[in-house]
Amino acid sequence: MARGYMGKILNVNLTTGKLQEEALSEELCRDFVGGYGIAARLLYERIPVGADPLGPDNVLGFMTGPLTGTPALIGSRYVMVGKSALHGGWGDCNSGGDFGPNLKFAGFDGVFFSGISPKPVYLFIENGKAELRDASDLWGKDTNEVDDILKARHGKETVASCIGPAGEKLVLFACAINDKGRAPGRSGLGAVMGAKKLKAVAVKGNLPVPMFDEKKAQELRRKYLRESKGFFDTLHTYGTCGITADSAMSGDSPVKNWAGVGPRDFPTASAISDEVVKFYEEKKYGCWRCPIACGGIMKLDSGPFALSARENFRGHKPEYETLCMFGTLTLDDDVQSIIKINEICNMYGMDTISAGAVAAFAIECYENGLLTKRDTGGLELTWGNAQAIVALTEKVAKREGIGDILAEGVMRAAKEIGKGAEEFAIHVSGQEVPAHDPKFTPGLALTYMLDATPGRHTQGGELVQPPGWFTAYDKYAYDQNSEMFYKLRTTTHVMNAAGLCMFGYISYDIQSMPDFLGAITGWHGTLEEIYKTGERIDVMRHAFNLREGINPLTRNMPGRIVGEPPLTEGNVRNVTVDYRTEVKKYLELMDWNKATTIPSEAKLKELGLGFLAKDLAKVKVPASNLLA
Amino acid sequence: MARGYMGKILNVNLTTGKLQEEALSEELCRDFVGGYGIAARLLYERIPVGADPLGPDNVLGFMTGPLTGTPALIGSRYVMVGKSALHGGWGDCNSGGDFGPNLKFAGFDGVFFSGISPKPVYLFIENGKAELRDASDLWGKDTNEVDDILKARHGKETVASCIGPAGEKLVLFACAINDKGRAPGRSGLGAVMGAKKLKAVAVKGNLPVPMFDEKKAQELRRKYLRESKGFFDTLHTYGTCGITADSAMSGDSPVKNWAGVGPRDFPTASAISDEVVKFYEEKKYGCWRCPIACGGIMKLDSGPFALSARENFRGHKPEYETLCMFGTLTLDDDVQSIIKINEICNMYGMDTISAGAVAAFAIECYENGLLTKRDTGGLELTWGNAQAIVALTEKVAKREGIGDILAEGVMRAAKEIGKGAEEFAIHVSGQEVPAHDPKFTPGLALTYMLDATPGRHTQGGELVQPPGWFTAYDKYAYDQNSEMFYKLRTTTHVMNAAGLCMFGYISYDIQSMPDFLGAITGWHGTLEEIYKTGERIDVMRHAFNLREGINPLTRNMPGRIVGEPPLTEGNVRNVTVDYRTEVKKYLELMDWNKATTIPSEAKLKELGLGFLAKDLAKVKVPASNLLA
Repeated sequence: MARGYMGKILNVNLTTGKLQEEALSEELCRDFVGGYGIAARLLYERIPVGADPLGPDNVLGFMTGPLTGTPALIGSRYVMVGKSALHGGWGDCNSGGDFGPNLKFAGFDGVFFSGISPKPVYLFIENGKAELRDASDLWGKDTNEVDDILKARHGKETVASCIGPAGEKLVLFACAINDKGRAPGRSGLGAVMGAKKLKAVAVKGNLPVPMFDEKKAQELRRKYLRESKGFFDTLHTYGTCGITADSAMSGDSPVKNWAGVGPRDFPTASAISDEVVKFYEEKKYGCWRCPIACGGIMKLDSGPFALSARENFRGHKPEYETLCMFGTLTLDDDVQSIIKINEICNMYGMDTISAGAVAAFAIECYENGLLTKRDTGGLELTWGNAQAIVALTEKVAKREGIGDILAEGVMRAAKEIGKGAEEFAIHVSGQEVPAHDPKFTPGLALTYMLDATPGRHTQGGELVQPPGWFTAYDKYAYDQNSEMFYKLRTTTHVMNAAGLCMFGYISYDIQSMPDFLGAITGWHGTLEEIYKTGERIDVMRHAFNLREGINPLTRNMPGRIVGEPPLTEGNVRNVTVDYRTEVKKYLELMDWNKATTIPSEAKLKELGLGFLAKDLAKVKVPASNLLA
Repeated sequence: MARGYMGKILNVNLTTGKLQEEALSEELCRDFVGGYGIAARLLYERIPVGADPLGPDNVLGFMTGPLTGTPALIGSRYVMVGKSALHGGWGDCNSGGDFGPNLKFAGFDGVFFSGISPKPVYLFIENGKAELRDASDLWGKDTNEVDDILKARHGKETVASCIGPAGEKLVLFACAINDKGRAPGRSGLGAVMGAKKLKAVAVKGNLPVPMFDEKKAQELRRKYLRESKGFFDTLHTYGTCGITADSAMSGDSPVKNWAGVGPRDFPTASAISDEVVKFYEEKKYGCWRCPIACGGIMKLDSGPFALSARENFRGHKPEYETLCMFGTLTLDDDVQSIIKINEICNMYGMDTISAGAVAAFAIECYENGLLTKRDTGGLELTWGNAQAIVALTEKVAKREGIGDILAEGVMRAAKEIGKGAEEFAIHVSGQEVPAHDPKFTPGLALTYMLDATPGRHTQGGELVQPPGWFTAYDKYAYDQNSEMFYKLRTTTHVMNAAGLCMFGYISYDIQSMPDFLGAITGWHGTLEEIYKTGERIDVMRHAFNLREGINPLTRNMPGRIVGEPPLTEGNVRNVTVDYRTEVKKYLELMDWNKATTIPSEAKLKELGLGFLAKDLAKVKVPASNLLA
């Protein structure tokens, strides 16, 4: 049998311009899988404690997993990693499209950037050969233009992950964009990229991806393709926009900056959902070898929100998160405006979740007189004012006027605005909360608080699970679901680290994960192994934060997201999420200290992370504790 | 074993005030089941050819079926029958609530009214004793008031089916209302009731309902209750409003008076659907012994559309048909306005389907300059103008101003308005078409055209079927679905005649029908028998029309409902329903002559309807033929 991992990364010092290949040990690849697993282990050594996220000491990585670019269902993903300027701790985010697989075909599992380049550059890798190129001509250009220029320059098979003007201007929730519309969105790593003066990473190649048992992997692909279940059909037909209307009504989606109730405050949710969105879809868009193809290319060639003529009035389909954060949260039911906003975020390179939260925050400030027309440069920031929200989004991307304050994210903007704006700033430790309400999915309260990257909805939580895995549980039995959370969080970590797509995870039986991992890497062929590996990755990311003095026990959990006080109407009325019980029980199960969240020495040893004990022994009991 | 049918009706001559009980023969009860089956056989003899629907020769019946008021799932229904002034032919319609079962508990399978009363009267039946009472004090009162007065007078267990002012004023699509919000809506039989000066039928009693094998019936009820399927859950949770948003998008619902496309013209459909409607639901409402309880009592106590203070601001939940005809069809997405309209229709006693079609017709006339503000008495009848639509509906109910013209239905109103209004009048032979589009459900084209009561959606069509019965068919294979239509139409006839609810029909396996019929009546214990019985009923109703000179081959089928020309956008774009092929194939299967629709003599004989041959031999080949 062949080796089941690539085991090679590229380290780039942007200050000196030096490139260095590095072989990864078999042990590292086995113990940490890939993606943010391996990255967390490496960057724990390489990012010094206290490093400025926007300074030269931060290390920014682009990592694939061992299943990226393989027959695994669905191996299209890469992650970006580094220290986040938005929430100050371990940052990661991931994206589909064609970039991840092609980074591997170009010869590397990943590439890591340290230092700061004296001038704008981009990295070009072709079949194992990498070089830094001048990007002065690309600087200031939007992601569509960069993509076109790099394809024209290096061949149309070139795929790039690049920032737009928002990343350059250090919008704290800026992100990279690949394939003109796929975004590793959260944690604001686009700002880190901008600070490093790194405009793009462009890759091209056709090197083989090593697989332990390729034949078996192909067989498994055929087998599981026949057995797709769960949300496969909805995603295949609509993509994530298929759930917008239902979610706005069920209480899954936050409404009116988390203070509203769908049926009363946003009864017109269907106007930004499923069939209405699909009405503008010209053709389906699928990531690399994806049988779901949840994406879509939209056409909008007239009206006030027509898409860019340069792109032939075409753009990517907004995701559920975008429709909800810019629609349900701001009460904008004009789907054309959200299609336009999605284009703006893609072109400038901004996370639509944070950008939407910022818009809703600004509107609530305006409606309550904390911002005036003078502050907004004339924009009437009222609920649902599509035209104003579109204009605001562009101001944020450009850091223009009020946009310069909002580009810092809601936590910092609220401090700047003062006068009670904090109440309207819905974030966990600086990261804006995505469009899934813990009052509807209580497990997300745990995830939002406890994950190393706070306020993330793709890191475990009972909403997102393989078909039929957990069907009989009481989601409001706060003391009884720890084991489910453990299994969901650990398998999710391995999914992300392996380069798998979450929509594959929810479309195929959970057994598909050990099956594909076993066939392709030769490791992790059982669920039990996967749980332990996921736990190891979880602790590794967590340790990064603890050592930095970032403790989840001190995080802010906005009352609106957990129902303190509860809503009095709607499907999740009277729900107050008892996340304290939920988290305490989970810490017990994990064998993490309840006063410090430090894993026990026995636990560290069990996971092969004994080397962390010395650093973690220095972690102080935090001055405040959410659970107390 | 006991006798499985009541076999007793009451005949009331309103001209003379004479009441006469009549025993029904076992043969009649077996061959025609009950409801409109028995009624069609009886009224074929009793309504003279050419009778004026609003004159003394018309006979108006209220009939239950043998399963009404029994353990059968779901035996809550009664039908009204008679000659329709709206479409001129055989008229029937049915309703749930508590009236049907209680008519039986009061001692009769049904009651038939001939003649015209010299003054307003109502019939009161209590445990087999019936009398006509003066209704002068009730005349002019709305259905809520009548219900309250009769309960106060005769005891709170009294249930009445009564007309409101619309029936008194002969609005051609007026209907009776029972239980303040259940409506035997179609065919305009409320106008017939008004013409007869019959304000109400009130019933009360506790007589036993005979059953062939009651123990078996109870067993079957327990068995099938455990096996509910299909739409049961949706209906249980939401009632029919659960499908409004999806249907507006899928092409099932007509949009903008049948000329629009959901995602473009009515993207806000969710604002009048499922959770939004449910938001105003104070408690569930179920018909007699119904496990689904699809109804609801709404509370709306503020705003411009607050419900009547007399009713404590409570009213019934609008059905899908009401939400669609007054929402999707008129582009009104203000759910409060539709809740109000529903109350108006219930209080005045009007079919919401026809009333909504009339509103959409009037709006399109107005938008195209065929009606002006002067015509409408100042109403701005623009698309989606909730306030104007509410006001218009009340004008129609009162025959006030423009309402007097519209109260005649769209066919007659279009003739009155002229100037091209006919294009906007969407009806089949005078009956407004309900909210299911044949372009989405092609079998409904056949039903709308061929059923004895034209333009009806509850008389067969592949949309409405027992769970999992027909799953593999190509709905657009116009020449291949005759057998499915035959089975659906014949079982639907027996369902209606037996007193079963359509929502039971679609919630339980089709086998439940022969099971319950067999246990309760001792007859029709196999599906094959049911097909033949349903066919017999079908031909009987059809013969009533043929003899009157009403031939389905001459009906108008509006281009908009069949896609002539087809829509160019949306889910049913490019669909033109080839109903000609569909109907021709079906006539072949039924052995009806394709030039006259007269059943062959062999067919009549097979069905035991040989006595019809003489009358039908006189039917002429119609001058025009839609199928030609």
